[in-house]
Amino acid sequence: MSRAEFSYDFPHRHLLSVADLNPVDIAIIFERAEVFLKRNRTPDKSSDGLRGLTVLNLFFEASTRTQGSFEMAGKRLGADVVNFAMASSSTSKGESLSDTARTLAAMQPDILVVRHPATGAPKFLAEATGLSVINAGDGMHEHPTQALLDSFTLAQRWGSVGGRRILIVGDILHSRVARSNIGLLNILGAEIRLCAPPTLLPTDVDQWGVEVFHDLDAALVGCDAVMALRQQKERMTGSFVPSEREFFHLFGLTHERLEVASPDVLVLHPGPMNRGVEIHTRLADDPEISLILDQVESGVAIRMAMLELIGTNIRKGYGS
Amino acid sequence: MSRAEFSYDFPHRHLLSVADLNPVDIAIIFERAEVFLKRNRTPDKSSDGLRGLTVLNLFFEASTRTQGSFEMAGKRLGADVVNFAMASSSTSKGESLSDTARTLAAMQPDILVVRHPATGAPKFLAEATGLSVINAGDGMHEHPTQALLDSFTLAQRWGSVGGRRILIVGDILHSRVARSNIGLLNILGAEIRLCAPPTLLPTDVDQWGVEVFHDLDAALVGCDAVMALRQQKERMTGSFVPSEREFFHLFGLTHERLEVASPDVLVLHPGPMNRGVEIHTRLADDPEISLILDQVESGVAIRMAMLELIGTNIRKGYGS
Amino acid sequence: MSRAEFSYDFPHRHLLSVADLNPVDIAIIFERAEVFLKRNRTPDKSSDGLRGLTVLNLFFEASTRTQGSFEMAGKRLGADVVNFAMASSSTSKGESLSDTARTLAAMQPDILVVRHPATGAPKFLAEATGLSVINAGDGMHEHPTQALLDSFTLAQRWGSVGGRRILIVGDILHSRVARSNIGLLNILGAEIRLCAPPTLLPTDVDQWGVEVFHDLDAALVGCDAVMALRQQKERMTGSFVPSEREFFHLFGLTHERLEVASPDVLVLHPGPMNRGVEIHTRLADDPEISLILDQVESGVAIRMAMLELIGTNIRKGYGS
Repeated sequence: MSRAEFSYDFPHRHLLSVADLNPVDIAIIFERAEVFLKRNRTPDKSSDGLRGLTVLNLFFEASTRTQGSFEMAGKRLGADVVNFAMASSSTSKGESLSDTARTLAAMQPDILVVRHPATGAPKFLAEATGLSVINAGDGMHEHPTQALLDSFTLAQRWGSVGGRRILIVGDILHSRVARSNIGLLNILGAEIRLCAPPTLLPTDVDQWGVEVFHDLDAALVGCDAVMALRQQKERMTGSFVPSEREFFHLFGLTHERLEVASPDVLVLHPGPMNRGVEIHTRLADDPEISLILDQVESGVAIRMAMLELIGTNIRKGYGS
Repeated sequence: MSRAEFSYDFPHRHLLSVADLNPVDIAIIFERAEVFLKRNRTPDKSSDGLRGLTVLNLFFEASTRTQGSFEMAGKRLGADVVNFAMASSSTSKGESLSDTARTLAAMQPDILVVRHPATGAPKFLAEATGLSVINAGDGMHEHPTQALLDSFTLAQRWGSVGGRRILIVGDILHSRVARSNIGLLNILGAEIRLCAPPTLLPTDVDQWGVEVFHDLDAALVGCDAVMALRQQKERMTGSFVPSEREFFHLFGLTHERLEVASPDVLVLHPGPMNRGVEIHTRLADDPEISLILDQVESGVAIRMAMLELIGTNIRKGYGS
Repeated sequence: MSRAEFSYDFPHRHLLSVADLNPVDIAIIFERAEVFLKRNRTPDKSSDGLRGLTVLNLFFEASTRTQGSFEMAGKRLGADVVNFAMASSSTSKGESLSDTARTLAAMQPDILVVRHPATGAPKFLAEATGLSVINAGDGMHEHPTQALLDSFTLAQRWGSVGGRRILIVGDILHSRVARSNIGLLNILGAEIRLCAPPTLLPTDVDQWGVEVFHDLDAALVGCDAVMALRQQKERMTGSFVPSEREFFHLFGLTHERLEVASPDVLVLHPGPMNRGVEIHTRLADDPEISLILDQVESGVAIRMAMLELIGTNIRKGYGS
């Protein structure tokens, strides 16, 4: 399938929320990501797909890993990639986000990759600048490329995630990864379970179209995949924080606990993981079950797919 | 006009001071910048104009914005751009500037882009290394690409700045932006006015070929453009610093105050601006009057023009 | 000699220790470095030798200079170069080196350039990831590109270092530069002398195949080259540290002291040097004797040669 064809039906110039995607969009993203996944395993990883375009990485929260994944994705596509270290920038100190945004937009980049501690900042930047924006994580809201790479990783094993029973366990309340995954898995027709103590669940969780558990052993019954989340201690203000030992005792994944799950159960973690807290170290390293490194690999491929699809639409003046 | 032609008459391999430029040089820079200004608005921003050359960004003072503008300019021209974070470098701690310079020069870069807190550091580096140097701001001395982008932005509106009455208001004393603008506007034949309290003016200002005012309303009469400068508090040692409120009361630009200026008056600010201090927020956002974002856009174009003109001369062994 | 030919006999996909190299390997590296040395002096420094490959710079210790040298080398060869600032990364805080390594490897880079405070970390990373690794300095162990560039610099003057008498003076105990140089010079058949106070020599130095001196004047007799090392104060825990004045008095190089050496004696320093401590300032600047800047220039060329040789083997599936 040539580039002109695959992008014909992809109508987006942003990736702000998984809610903007339909199953066809997701299939197009995954199809393209699979091409990059394979190419990235060869010594000919580079193309000119984004040549002539400028990608700005705007990380208002430091993240070596996610920023590196996006930077690598952009460079392999031939874009001019410039990192603006907004976390430490004097630009961001005196200025409003609006002024910063419009200043950066005046430099005529094509795509902004934005991580920000405030919910909605990427959407605000898209509106304020008119530029294409990829949300690389905003507050406790969304992290759509993480959800895409998670489902893509599962789809590489299963063909499809539709109809599968998937459990998300851990600190749901503070997790943008959970929110984006729930949104995406709903679109893809998976059966979603959550497991967390009541203090780490949002109050409106009953409206999310998911089944809620507080007991891990009950939650795991018949699951095809489990996503473990770390406690976002930096976002826990005034709430009771379980110790690492307590957390592992209550919510830590082990081979033994997974015995009630599907015989082919798979385990994911968005990283960085804490061995012996969210997951037993032996389970994390079990190549039959753990997809943790596959997720990282998928991450670069998904980001290349998103950048190329959006870049193609920018060139064609297509999409919104 | 082909590259060979336009650069024929551009005899420079450095941009240390605006005083090195004559009106023909400036016309050549502006002509080339206009090409880049237009190309940067398209998705085909990149060329191979600097392919094979290495540009080092040496920022001994942190500046996310200016460094990013130069980095983007170099990358869009196909140069290999390497940022050396000299502000935090251990290299710069134990070593003299001379040793640092010669060490970096031994890596065989072609162009050094230098920001340094000391007046004359870029010139010193040019002499110590024999490399092409672009001054990206040295102490309270010069910031020539800022002056070029300011005049270029005005010239895009007016055709030419010659004969126009231009006011610079604010902390003139500590401003390299003011010094470079005064030099360049003099070369271009503009009529220059300064407005500042006596404590924020240099003692030798009467030799600068400018008209000096302490009262903003008087200074604004008949002006075609006004450049607002922020207070360089980090450079004010032992001097009286007006509060933000006092500063706005005395020197802040507003629509009302501009009524005595030319009916088509334009406003510039080198950024980052402080809304409600140097400029009323409504004026900063007035697209008829405020050129603040145009300046940022022009900045990348001017830097591309300078890098390409100098790079062409390096290739040809031409210029000094 | 075409690229296919020169790499035919180069069997390596890593540069972990100079001990892995034989004289033919070294000749191949030097031959290729000479090509780059010359090309780097022109405005056409870039090639596509590493196009399609991704180089990760992983510096767990900050080093503006060495990281910049590797970054420039990779970019001039057309690689996609991504710097991971591991020294300040949150990735490295909670995670074991093993998890960090496997995470980064999952992003499918081709070559890791690693600096780490712990001996053996590059070897560990090579084993844990299966990726090509270049050791850019590990603890007090090795710094093989430094040794290669030092011998290459001398070989540019002499044709060969074999049979030459070379003295290393200063803090041998804490110096990975000394260890790698001793290893490489032994392979190349040089006669090696060390000069240091007993407290700055390792206890097993008598097994190193070198001649040990405590008195500089005796050590210098008949030497063809002298490498001065700075005191690694950051690694001196609990040991007696000579003052700068004492150090210069005992071990500082001067024109006068060099009178007992060979009439054509050459001086090297891995930098950054402390003028008036390891070396008299006038000697450091003597173009007949001091190779300090030649070393920096050679560094980029040697790193380009290593990256290209390893990259060629990666492409061909050759070497180990």
